Amino acid sequence: MDKQLLVEEIYRKSSFLCLGLDTDLTKIPKHLLVNPDPVFAFNKLMIDSLCNLVVAVKINTAFYEVNGADGWVSLEKTIEYLNSNYPKIFTIADAKRGDIGNTSDKYAKAFFENLGFDSVTVSPYMGKDSIEPFLNYKEKKTILLALTSNIGSEDFQFLNTNDLKLYEQVIIKSKTWEGFENLMFVVGATKSEYIKSIRELVPKSFLLVPGVGAQGGSISEVFKNAANDHIGILINSSRAILYAGSGKDFLEKSILSAKSYQREMSELINFKI
Amino acid sequence: MDKQLLVEEIYRKSSFLCLGLDTDLTKIPKHLLVNPDPVFAFNKLMIDSLCNLVVAVKINTAFYEVNGADGWVSLEKTIEYLNSNYPKIFTIADAKRGDIGNTSDKYAKAFFENLGFDSVTVSPYMGKDSIEPFLNYKEKKTILLALTSNIGSEDFQFLNTNDLKLYEQVIIKSKTWEGFENLMFVVGATKSEYIKSIRELVPKSFLLVPGVGAQGGSISEVFKNAANDHIGILINSSRAILYAGSGKDFLEKSILSAKSYQREMSELINFKI
Repeated sequence: MDKQLLVEEIYRKSSFLCLGLDTDLTKIPKHLLVNPDPVFAFNKLMIDSLCNLVVAVKINTAFYEVNGADGWVSLEKTIEYLNSNYPKIFTIADAKRGDIGNTSDKYAKAFFENLGFDSVTVSPYMGKDSIEPFLNYKEKKTILLALTSNIGSEDFQFLNTNDLKLYEQVIIKSKTWEGFENLMFVVGATKSEYIKSIRELVPKSFLLVPGVGAQGGSISEVFKNAANDHIGILINSSRAILYAGSGKDFLEKSILSAKSYQREMSELINFKI
Repeated sequence: MDKQLLVEEIYRKSSFLCLGLDTDLTKIPKHLLVNPDPVFAFNKLMIDSLCNLVVAVKINTAFYEVNGADGWVSLEKTIEYLNSNYPKIFTIADAKRGDIGNTSDKYAKAFFENLGFDSVTVSPYMGKDSIEPFLNYKEKKTILLALTSNIGSEDFQFLNTNDLKLYEQVIIKSKTWEGFENLMFVVGATKSEYIKSIRELVPKSFLLVPGVGAQGGSISEVFKNAANDHIGILINSSRAILYAGSGKDFLEKSILSAKSYQREMSELINFKI
């Protein structure tokens, strides 16, 4: 889907919430485990219940790979279900891939062509030719790790190089790449003091912001520092929504959790308009 | 498997060759495509034919993910076949994963516990807590990207920071991590002029060296600069061995290709002894 449609959906739903499907067999309600594919059953319920509150869905590949080939089937069924039933929801494969060109080609084909995701997250360490195969899909978005939400982001991303931090170098370098207009950037909500300067570097790009909820970041801080004239941010929440409840009423709890995010986002959007 | 056994196998086989199973349905001999799982059929033939010439097998996950859930089944069958029949061959999941802690936990579980790989490649960009879940598996090896073989390695890995290149910072930082003794490092054969200084930074660690064959690196240059008193290097070749032939005699061609690598390695090892 194109950026214009995503922006329209953000305004229509008054939400820039991304639902992170970090679906974990050890955490979903026990009564779902009788289902032949409990992961897909859980995902389907979440998607159907939250479709009016979220504009994007992010599938974290680790949580599917840990279930082996069965997990890959759950992943395939989930993205197929999204594409068939909710084509206006922006889909993200949170895979953090990146390898030499002929290998990144295969990853890009796997996630964009075969699975039909709108976007995939990639790691910048191996440089331009590891990202190009993704950027070659002009109708897709490639989401580059810039400044991540975890403590370990301080190990290398903040290293100073020629008066710039590494994450700034990554962003600045990526602006020279063909297809830059199809890049989005991962910026952790726990790093809200740095988001403003990142927004100045890429005024028009969408930012994918993980790290609210379980990780402690603030939606209003992120919005204040990063919203642009088309909003331009997607804030992800995974665990805080998925596992808000664990009993028979788990869906109601998840809806309440997502609604509280969406309500805050709606107020921020309306205040800005 | 432990490092001591790997070293013994290197001396026993006079080889530090790693076979890279970048198995590509569009490149394997056409007559294999009638098989219900041509990828596994091809891998099995390669493994059985080359088991005396190689000490390690590296499975590049991209080439399996591109075939979806079926690809994951081929991957599972391949690693299961290796573990059952060739327990002394060191196995590598070339996955280049790395994410926040709770996600890396799942990747580590997927590759180490469920699939039973001896090692997995990881990307350093997200820092210590993205690697720790792998290092927590004390009987496994974690292979950290340091200096990669591709052109894009120059984009960020060579950036100067506090008088060190980024890849040097990565290596030096990793020496402070608990479990460092279970780390190995990816260093591209195309960067042989830098390998000597990397070896000085990590005199005892194994280096996984891709980039000979299709990418143009030299085995003797790598050996001269990086071999230590237990050899300490694994040189990977994928395409140059797998696709040496494409007709009915493809296995003979692959054996010839692997033998020529192994012969060169044998001479280097014997000369050193």
